[in-house]
Amino acid sequence: MEFSSKLIADAVSEFAQLPGVGKKTALRFVLHLLKKEESQVDSFSNSIIKLRKEVRYCENCHNISDQLHCEICKNPHRDASQVCVVQDIRDVIAIENTGLYRGQYHVLGGIISPMEGIGPSNLHIDSLVDKVGSGQVKEIIMALSSTMEGETTNFYIYRKLNAFPVSITTIARGVPIGDELEYTDEVTLGRSIQHRIPYVQQLNNK
Amino acid sequence: MEFSSKLIADAVSEFAQLPGVGKKTALRFVLHLLKKEESQVDSFSNSIIKLRKEVRYCENCHNISDQLHCEICKNPHRDASQVCVVQDIRDVIAIENTGLYRGQYHVLGGIISPMEGIGPSNLHIDSLVDKVGSGQVKEIIMALSSTMEGETTNFYIYRKLNAFPVSITTIARGVPIGDELEYTDEVTLGRSIQHRIPYVQQLNNK
Repeated sequence: MEFSSKLIADAVSEFAQLPGVGKKTALRFVLHLLKKEESQVDSFSNSIIKLRKEVRYCENCHNISDQLHCEICKNPHRDASQVCVVQDIRDVIAIENTGLYRGQYHVLGGIISPMEGIGPSNLHIDSLVDKVGSGQVKEIIMALSSTMEGETTNFYIYRKLNAFPVSITTIARGVPIGDELEYTDEVTLGRSIQHRIPYVQQLNNK
Repeated sequence: MEFSSKLIADAVSEFAQLPGVGKKTALRFVLHLLKKEESQVDSFSNSIIKLRKEVRYCENCHNISDQLHCEICKNPHRDASQVCVVQDIRDVIAIENTGLYRGQYHVLGGIISPMEGIGPSNLHIDSLVDKVGSGQVKEIIMALSSTMEGETTNFYIYRKLNAFPVSITTIARGVPIGDELEYTDEVTLGRSIQHRIPYVQQLNNK
């Protein structure tokens, strides 16, 4: 794709570096910005600069935060004895959106993946062990993806925390609500039969 | 979607204003930028500011240009007597990519669309009439989309230019190369039969 303007070409190649954005989509973004007021475009680019310069990570849970501790860790109504271990901030947002979790989080910043050169030392695992070691945590809820890498990370953390008097749980896997059994894969369906719960418990959750 | 950081929330809402980008995609962009070096993010946002501040439009064809006249209009090898009328810069890029057009362009900046409040006065039609009136143009090639709005604009321009000694043509519509007749819509197939060309002419184009 050839552009008559170097300004356009530069902006397109910058946008095309975003995940899932090709040159055609990037050009669409650029032409969209060109039609906007200069002040709107300024506020767009300022929000990006500010984001990168001022972003901080919570000292306690490594979630993205504007201050030393994030809103969740600072909230006295959240149960600090319950810690949900997740891969990244998107998982925090997803779980927060359910409105059903009142504990705290621990963001690993990734999962163990030898293929991508990510080992335990690249993740926030030591600080999780320290947190558990301090004795304030009663339950660790593992909420990593059920891929090979996720299971490896689960097992690594389990081995590290096994010696401490903490209960280690993992989120339930099963047939999604609204899905038909017929179209559910065997592994998921098998898991949901193995880990069945008393019907009364489900009734109470409603 | 709730974010633990105002910086993230601001950046996400800015990105979510781009066409076709929702909050989830915007968050993906934001987390991607957070992982990049500060210098890379600076160059990203600078390219946007520069784009909006410094972009110019070619005085002759209204194409986007870094100078008073765009590269195409400045090129002495391009035939100034042939002018292809297009809706916006994306069409210029598309036609340039074919490598088969050696004339100049005239970018209207849109098409007549009463629904969106775009009338002839909002488009660069007067300057097209002036250009033709100066007598340098021999052929106007209409290359607007074949929608109701495109056809309306075609007809409006045809009426404006009819009095001048200029030949007004329109790009060929027909069955795309590689497509099967069976799956082509009737209007397109009908058009390609009506506007059939001598076989020898197609042979010579190869």
